[in-house]
Amino acid sequence: MSVEIAEQPDALAATFEHVLPLRDQITRLAAGRRNVLFVARGSSDNACVYGRYLTEIHAGRQASLAAPSVATLYGANLDLSNTLVVAVSQSGATQEIVDTAEWAKRNGAAIVGITNHADSPLASTADVALITQAGQELAVPATKTYTTQLAAITVAVDALASKPGTLDADIARVPEVAAKALELDVEVAAALLAGAHDVLASGRGLTFGTTLEVALKLEETCLQPVRGLSYADLKHGPIAVVDSDLVTILVAAPSGPALPGLIDLAGLVREKGSKILGIGGDAAFASGCDVALPGPDLPETLAPLTLIIPAQLTIEALARKLGLDPDAPRGLRKVTQTD
Amino acid sequence: MSVEIAEQPDALAATFEHVLPLRDQITRLAAGRRNVLFVARGSSDNACVYGRYLTEIHAGRQASLAAPSVATLYGANLDLSNTLVVAVSQSGATQEIVDTAEWAKRNGAAIVGITNHADSPLASTADVALITQAGQELAVPATKTYTTQLAAITVAVDALASKPGTLDADIARVPEVAAKALELDVEVAAALLAGAHDVLASGRGLTFGTTLEVALKLEETCLQPVRGLSYADLKHGPIAVVDSDLVTILVAAPSGPALPGLIDLAGLVREKGSKILGIGGDAAFASGCDVALPGPDLPETLAPLTLIIPAQLTIEALARKLGLDPDAPRGLRKVTQTD
Repeated sequence: MSVEIAEQPDALAATFEHVLPLRDQITRLAAGRRNVLFVARGSSDNACVYGRYLTEIHAGRQASLAAPSVATLYGANLDLSNTLVVAVSQSGATQEIVDTAEWAKRNGAAIVGITNHADSPLASTADVALITQAGQELAVPATKTYTTQLAAITVAVDALASKPGTLDADIARVPEVAAKALELDVEVAAALLAGAHDVLASGRGLTFGTTLEVALKLEETCLQPVRGLSYADLKHGPIAVVDSDLVTILVAAPSGPALPGLIDLAGLVREKGSKILGIGGDAAFASGCDVALPGPDLPETLAPLTLIIPAQLTIEALARKLGLDPDAPRGLRKVTQTD
Repeated sequence: MSVEIAEQPDALAATFEHVLPLRDQITRLAAGRRNVLFVARGSSDNACVYGRYLTEIHAGRQASLAAPSVATLYGANLDLSNTLVVAVSQSGATQEIVDTAEWAKRNGAAIVGITNHADSPLASTADVALITQAGQELAVPATKTYTTQLAAITVAVDALASKPGTLDADIARVPEVAAKALELDVEVAAALLAGAHDVLASGRGLTFGTTLEVALKLEETCLQPVRGLSYADLKHGPIAVVDSDLVTILVAAPSGPALPGLIDLAGLVREKGSKILGIGGDAAFASGCDVALPGPDLPETLAPLTLIIPAQLTIEALARKLGLDPDAPRGLRKVTQTD
């Protein structure tokens, strides 16, 4: 896992190099299609949560996440002639995702497939295949395949904007920003989590997908149930469970309209006695946290591409601290099959 | 809470009586609108998860859940002229939901509002207002307002079907089925949960919303973080956390295409040493669980309307067993304001 975390700057650079020239094809494929439907499971689904917000905020088209069972179990027929499907699977071979993409195609959707395997069923089904250049991933917890999926999603969504290309100058900086994140010292952060009875993660808007990925990665790697909640959902009820037994992880971009609410949330959670691990944000955010790991110097739209890296490093260190093997957690296989 | 749980058969009957005559209005309002967008938070959002599956499976239109921050924080402009919005709020006064509904209307959407308060801002904003007839809800955890929201959602979605009215014979039976659920003895189920270190809930498809509501209610009422996961998401990764420290709650309809997978999941989870509390399902499902609470004798499309009742009874009993006040959990107010 630690080797693959460190490969991310190069994998991101290679993925952008491969994917950016395909942007025009996606713009043409999506012409006249007003809706975007993301299809994925697991870490890929968390990448799609970012894609969903980015599509609505950056590209101004309606976006949602598919419920694959509607296709695979219930066999519902929907009119998807107005829809661009973005199907994401590391292996490109998860049967449920491939089946749902094929179902969407039969129902009139155009398909962008994002996968790490050019010779996979998903790549064959897709009208445009974006192949992430992560190389082989051996550790079970997805790291470089997740961030390169985010890179491909960014380009696919930018293809839908009224004027594609406005993010390109910042996209060019992503690999070096990722490299900088690798230098972080995460020992204090890992020690904070090691002492926690329960952990809860929260973020909002463009960082909500990162929040879910932090929760899933902690859960998979350290075998502890972790809730990932949007700021608003947390305040709407589950705030009741926040107390001194709990460590709260807050995930924030360095700027943007979601940041002030997350700074407020840090204050609220702290009043209830919970320790806070902050990832990203600005100086005001960091000063509201017990342990703060700085995030990327990127605009909010791109921050999620590297914002997960401090969490990956922390979780890898935490797993070793707990005597677990971060590369091969109990009960997980690399190619997942759901039905 | 226990008084309000018991009021549900009457509240459901009164809600259907009020809402069914408005079905034609919704059919006309939705004419030519291919997408349905649900807007809600908390328990209302869980009701909308049911609505989302029902819309795609029963009515054959594409459905999704809104990300309110796209409207309220990011101020994105989306073309919603093709969209019917179903906005759901018990109070009808949650600012975020009212703001998002108004934003959707400005962007061309038609609005169905579902609320328990006829004189609320949401009812005023809506083109058609469906007023749930739950009466005043004093306990903080939503029970009768949640199930009556489900009733209103069922009717709103049925209005979008190619032939509305096919569910009516079964809808007429819902209040008596709810009354039967109230007779359940939940002591053994509550004792099982009282001994759990962690709790995880899982369901799939039409029962996934119920699963999330079980998790949220447990969390709000018993102050314990609880994950609610679809069967497929659970198998895709977090299955790693299932062990003998954990009680798994499985939620199933008595029939339908999601049931066989949930019976398989019971076997898988049991192999990992977790005790299982089963809610609903059939005889084969019940025999795979350590404690089984029978569910409703309703088709899968309507089962969620009363499937939550055994869980409500169990959670209320559990809260008392833990020395907590089920009517007023720490940290929650009745009208929630998120921003």
